[in-house]
Amino acid sequence: MIVIMHPHATPDDVEQVKERLRQAGLRPYVAQGDERVVIHGHGNPRALDGQQVETLRGVERVVTVSRPYKLASREFRPEPTVVAAGGVPFGGDAIPIIAGPCSVESEAGLLEIAGFLRRAGGAALRGGAFKPRTSPYSFQGLGQEGLRLLALARQVTGLPVVTEVMAPEQVEQVAAYADVLQIGARNMQNFPLLQAVGRTRKPVLLKRGFMATVEEWLLAAEYILAEGNPHVILCERGIRTFETSTRNTLDLNAVAVAKSLTHLPVIVDPSHGTGHREYVIPLARAAVAVGADGLIVEVHPRPDQALSDGNQSLDFAQFQQLVEEVEAVARALGRRLFRHGDEPGRQAARDGTVTGAGREGRAGAGREGRGDGQPGLPRPGEPDVPVGPAAGGAAPSPRRAAAGGGN
Amino acid sequence: MIVIMHPHATPDDVEQVKERLRQAGLRPYVAQGDERVVIHGHGNPRALDGQQVETLRGVERVVTVSRPYKLASREFRPEPTVVAAGGVPFGGDAIPIIAGPCSVESEAGLLEIAGFLRRAGGAALRGGAFKPRTSPYSFQGLGQEGLRLLALARQVTGLPVVTEVMAPEQVEQVAAYADVLQIGARNMQNFPLLQAVGRTRKPVLLKRGFMATVEEWLLAAEYILAEGNPHVILCERGIRTFETSTRNTLDLNAVAVAKSLTHLPVIVDPSHGTGHREYVIPLARAAVAVGADGLIVEVHPRPDQALSDGNQSLDFAQFQQLVEEVEAVARALGRRLFRHGDEPGRQAARDGTVTGAGREGRAGAGREGRGDGQPGLPRPGEPDVPVGPAAGGAAPSPRRAAAGGGN
Amino acid sequence: MIVIMHPHATPDDVEQVKERLRQAGLRPYVAQGDERVVIHGHGNPRALDGQQVETLRGVERVVTVSRPYKLASREFRPEPTVVAAGGVPFGGDAIPIIAGPCSVESEAGLLEIAGFLRRAGGAALRGGAFKPRTSPYSFQGLGQEGLRLLALARQVTGLPVVTEVMAPEQVEQVAAYADVLQIGARNMQNFPLLQAVGRTRKPVLLKRGFMATVEEWLLAAEYILAEGNPHVILCERGIRTFETSTRNTLDLNAVAVAKSLTHLPVIVDPSHGTGHREYVIPLARAAVAVGADGLIVEVHPRPDQALSDGNQSLDFAQFQQLVEEVEAVARALGRRLFRHGDEPGRQAARDGTVTGAGREGRAGAGREGRGDGQPGLPRPGEPDVPVGPAAGGAAPSPRRAAAGGGN
Amino acid sequence: MIVIMHPHATPDDVEQVKERLRQAGLRPYVAQGDERVVIHGHGNPRALDGQQVETLRGVERVVTVSRPYKLASREFRPEPTVVAAGGVPFGGDAIPIIAGPCSVESEAGLLEIAGFLRRAGGAALRGGAFKPRTSPYSFQGLGQEGLRLLALARQVTGLPVVTEVMAPEQVEQVAAYADVLQIGARNMQNFPLLQAVGRTRKPVLLKRGFMATVEEWLLAAEYILAEGNPHVILCERGIRTFETSTRNTLDLNAVAVAKSLTHLPVIVDPSHGTGHREYVIPLARAAVAVGADGLIVEVHPRPDQALSDGNQSLDFAQFQQLVEEVEAVARALGRRLFRHGDEPGRQAARDGTVTGAGREGRAGAGREGRGDGQPGLPRPGEPDVPVGPAAGGAAPSPRRAAAGGGN
Repeated sequence: MIVIMHPHATPDDVEQVKERLRQAGLRPYVAQGDERVVIHGHGNPRALDGQQVETLRGVERVVTVSRPYKLASREFRPEPTVVAAGGVPFGGDAIPIIAGPCSVESEAGLLEIAGFLRRAGGAALRGGAFKPRTSPYSFQGLGQEGLRLLALARQVTGLPVVTEVMAPEQVEQVAAYADVLQIGARNMQNFPLLQAVGRTRKPVLLKRGFMATVEEWLLAAEYILAEGNPHVILCERGIRTFETSTRNTLDLNAVAVAKSLTHLPVIVDPSHGTGHREYVIPLARAAVAVGADGLIVEVHPRPDQALSDGNQSLDFAQFQQLVEEVEAVARALGRRLFRHGDEPGRQAARDGTVTGAGREGRAGAGREGRGDGQPGLPRPGEPDVPVGPAAGGAAPSPRRAAAGGGN
Repeated sequence: MIVIMHPHATPDDVEQVKERLRQAGLRPYVAQGDERVVIHGHGNPRALDGQQVETLRGVERVVTVSRPYKLASREFRPEPTVVAAGGVPFGGDAIPIIAGPCSVESEAGLLEIAGFLRRAGGAALRGGAFKPRTSPYSFQGLGQEGLRLLALARQVTGLPVVTEVMAPEQVEQVAAYADVLQIGARNMQNFPLLQAVGRTRKPVLLKRGFMATVEEWLLAAEYILAEGNPHVILCERGIRTFETSTRNTLDLNAVAVAKSLTHLPVIVDPSHGTGHREYVIPLARAAVAVGADGLIVEVHPRPDQALSDGNQSLDFAQFQQLVEEVEAVARALGRRLFRHGDEPGRQAARDGTVTGAGREGRAGAGREGRGDGQPGLPRPGEPDVPVGPAAGGAAPSPRRAAAGGGN
Repeated sequence: MIVIMHPHATPDDVEQVKERLRQAGLRPYVAQGDERVVIHGHGNPRALDGQQVETLRGVERVVTVSRPYKLASREFRPEPTVVAAGGVPFGGDAIPIIAGPCSVESEAGLLEIAGFLRRAGGAALRGGAFKPRTSPYSFQGLGQEGLRLLALARQVTGLPVVTEVMAPEQVEQVAAYADVLQIGARNMQNFPLLQAVGRTRKPVLLKRGFMATVEEWLLAAEYILAEGNPHVILCERGIRTFETSTRNTLDLNAVAVAKSLTHLPVIVDPSHGTGHREYVIPLARAAVAVGADGLIVEVHPRPDQALSDGNQSLDFAQFQQLVEEVEAVARALGRRLFRHGDEPGRQAARDGTVTGAGREGRAGAGREGRGDGQPGLPRPGEPDVPVGPAAGGAAPSPRRAAAGGGN
Repeated sequence: MIVIMHPHATPDDVEQVKERLRQAGLRPYVAQGDERVVIHGHGNPRALDGQQVETLRGVERVVTVSRPYKLASREFRPEPTVVAAGGVPFGGDAIPIIAGPCSVESEAGLLEIAGFLRRAGGAALRGGAFKPRTSPYSFQGLGQEGLRLLALARQVTGLPVVTEVMAPEQVEQVAAYADVLQIGARNMQNFPLLQAVGRTRKPVLLKRGFMATVEEWLLAAEYILAEGNPHVILCERGIRTFETSTRNTLDLNAVAVAKSLTHLPVIVDPSHGTGHREYVIPLARAAVAVGADGLIVEVHPRPDQALSDGNQSLDFAQFQQLVEEVEAVARALGRRLFRHGDEPGRQAARDGTVTGAGREGRAGAGREGRGDGQPGLPRPGEPDVPVGPAAGGAAPSPRRAAAGGGN
């Protein structure tokens, strides 16, 4: 049983609901979102009548969810969630491309890449400062210095920054620099780490573990949501199979499956998914065709000299080709590429989950995009709401505005 | 070493080349294509100088291939092969959709489906007469009666027929009715069966085994090609992984990989690949976006009553949606859907491999399609050839013409 | 519903039961065993009352089985089945080791190996005459000549012969020479082939497909049993996983699972399972420890010169070590190695299924072996029967007797 | 290049070697073991001549290793390492069984289990205080209270305690209570956690990730070793495959492979490996037969009431059967079960790595066990050393002695 509280519910109201759940033998989990509190009562779903709980003070509505994940499910929230990350919306009609080097290597190199991406249609900048490497003797990333360089590249280009966090004790440090906290595939079931990013309000990019089922992936997202952070972007990046002609097997089935089960945005990483530069573009096209809400790709000016993952990095010309081809597929299906500057009135005002947005139903609908809207906690069951002019891009964050001016 | 003989080379010329290869310690494999003979000398590639062999009478050219598969490789034949099956070209710009029920169940049902498909944009009719079933107690297909019904449906609608053959001793029987012989996933390494269909000149639809690597798949194709049948269409239909939310994991990476390694057309079966009706359309879109040369999907007027695979069969409305969405993706990438009747001058005259056809290079090129051309054996290394007016659809087979008139 | 007929039931009795099943809407499958007929009525288990059927003439008893496989299930036959193959019992207390080269290569080589194995504790001789090879250009076996050499080696050493059959049309030819027909992993779901060997009364060694679940494996066995051949030996030989340090992943779990689900004997092939000579002995020990009823291993006098699978073949000294270590494990668990000549009174009289035999329950019981018994069809539900001295080895087949005399 | 320093080398000696490596372009990794320092110079192996480095002050010897893992490799240390954990040696002739409940649930329950295990042949007590659970709503363990109960059970029974640590910031807390820090399968590539336990000197039980190759597993061990903690026990616990009849596929091949590649002890968890109680005993027998150095199994007095993993927990009678059968297999192969109290002169004096111990070579050798020896850092390349009576169990830890007296 999931109890959605009013935005103006008091701590006492919340406490009273928790107590009622406990009396019925349910364990209450409180998710404190940006706008409102959601309480999940775990246990026997028939232990308590939802209508009784709806009469308690401060309760907006009660939802019953049959899936093992609750807050992540379409049953809890039928319409798609749009997560705005550094002003870039994920989950609406517009499809953002996150791009950048595998690892941050140097200031000059990073600025070269970021500047190129800003001009070429990139929506956000990726780059590893802390790198999870299979061998202790491989390059482990520049650490703090890498974070500083990412922030510099954002300042210069206006591109928000996506970077990985590897341990609970790094979360605060990384969150001070990054717009999106990435959880790597190897950490998808690092539960203390999931809880730590769940206690922030930063958008989280949750990569699917290469050994994880879709259900486990959504349960990992639930760990974050259950801590009160609703800003989760899922990312398919390939699973491990017997096939060796690709580094992993990019599982586009999982995108279709996840989109049907969850309201969260789902993006795709064809670079790690295939591990070979030559397959990145066709799989990027396919990812958008299957319904992905974004892409994340590795780009390097001179892939042969990259300190890590050179084999799977696109060079600049290839990235331009990818943008062009992906855009063609997106338009054919009634969506479009997100591009900075194209749509001042459309973008989200600040980071967070945007409601009343997104496409429903079948692709090809050709509907006008509405990637903006009022940020806040998911409003389950609520129909698309009209969005006032005060919302969205009308009030860009100072940082973004300044940065944008620099370009 | 692969020796391509002139179209007019005599049996004596062939014998002389074989003898020369044997003298050098190579084992000769003779592939007797429709137009010419190709001889593969297996063994140490340095045992014999190719230039010496080119001086022998009847030899057109000699090619060296480093991959374990030879005739299937891009090294042997750089440009794409177009396989014409019952007048429908696979591997050119136009993308055909094969559709139909899992099993042939009844005359009325089959004619209902085939008639619908002909109107709705289907290119060929699929349907199982002999069904490989995991349990001996499951419905095993109508057998000979199923073949008869398929031929009847072809006569009425003009759609060529694709159906599975399960054993070497069935090949003659099935080939008497079918336009395309399907080798099912479980039989991908049934080598006597591959050799048996390789001894016909019927187009073969070779499904990837659900536990086969791409290399094994191409080696299975090589078994058919090495027997002299050049008309092979590859079909990705999902691999077996740990993931259980889909019946199999449709591996679109494999399409990109196979297209880079082989000149043979590659199509995709999203019905078996996903096993759930609701995922068939998004994966079909993705298949075309990744570069597939066709689709094969299960369609049933009342999926809930199907004798087999009802869960993954589209109903008629869903098939129409699939056609519409797939067509949009194809056009965005410079290709188009194959539709009977649309292009009288474009289609292949008779079954077989069509040269001088197909797209090269990147998608999105928007080039005019040339899905027709002079049928014959692959002409390795040959540039696109101009195609005379005598070729292609100008001389449809009587059966096709008659059937077409019925629509 | 499974109807077990009396040994003396007439064809009319059988026909009457079939008719009764059909009237109730069930489809009858008749398995004509060596001694009696078993009829499986497929369909709704509640369509017909078993007690009614038991009153029909010629019916011994009726069994209901809930698993998808019927004749293969423990529910149908609780006690272990012993399959006697060329006088060697599989499924009793004694554990036979089948050994030999991957491919039959030459007369001298084969006789050298067979002679060594006879002295060193081998129970039967394996060797491929028809070889399923991934590439059409690899050595495909000596064919008919290989069969002749295997029969010669049997004549000289008395070891029964196990060899692979690859296509339905080869069954008669191979059965004329072999004591056990092997179905290779790639053919586990080659249903026409399973039916063809099911129509013989030769013991069949059914390898698990490297992509097959245990349930699919038992259903493949069911195809053979349902044709009336009860003499099936299952063989685990490794599955395909992501791990690359072994050729396959030998799945000893599957042995424990299969032994709990079926009464058929289960043996293990650690040579194909691991693909590396150095791991064959430890995995052979483990196979016996987990409860396997036999082993099949590749042995070659000079593995480095083998035409196929040299990497995984043991040399003679290693085979002797394997026998010694496996014997130690077997004895620790109350079983023993099968050795020719050791136990004249214990062995089965002729090929076929032996009842009243085998261990039940937990390993380590230290019970006296009873690998002999009265050959015949499974007697479902029957307790261990006392076995008279007339049974078993007392009447060896002439061929075996002659061969045995040669040693 | 790996530089092994003398036990009496000074910090200045170490610094000088590091400087020399840096001059040659190598990156030095210092592993501070219990007795001596080992320095791995990562980079081009030909950058520096090992003989030159051997002349530096404080250097004992230099070793070159070709594998990606260095300190974990057999090349670095040919003889097996024995890790003593709370007085229990892993990696020698004696085979310890770790057993206990999945989760610590209550004081009475835990003491009941621990007392039983001490009497029945258990060597150490397992039990989860912090539980990694797929769902945030599942029982997450008793935490600190669970640790306290485990310590209490140790005090009462003398069994050392194995429990999981899930995050770097928990290491200190868990290490204050546990004798062995367990890294769970989901955390096998949680590199900050590996480094955190590497900075302790507690024995670490490193479970193989269920999607990890053997090489990745050994590289995970290398992360711990490279931080200076040489006390690593590897644990195979099943991998994820397509097969669903077992929860995971216990991969006993990996035990044979790992034993050939690394000197570290390798134990097996058949409970998680199979996920079904009925398969635990046969797979435990097989694990010992393949060469495992120990077992870890789940035991619960009333499995049907367990808060987690009840399906795979043995009851008391089954555990006794397991001990009996495993002991029979061990003895057949020249090893034996570790039992507290049996062998006062044999056990290790204190926790840590024990040299000069263990079996080499083939099983079945029937050699006298020497599970004791002088504790210390690995001595690479050193032959088995004779072990004086002063070593090992002659000076048991007071805790162990006291506890032993209680039984």
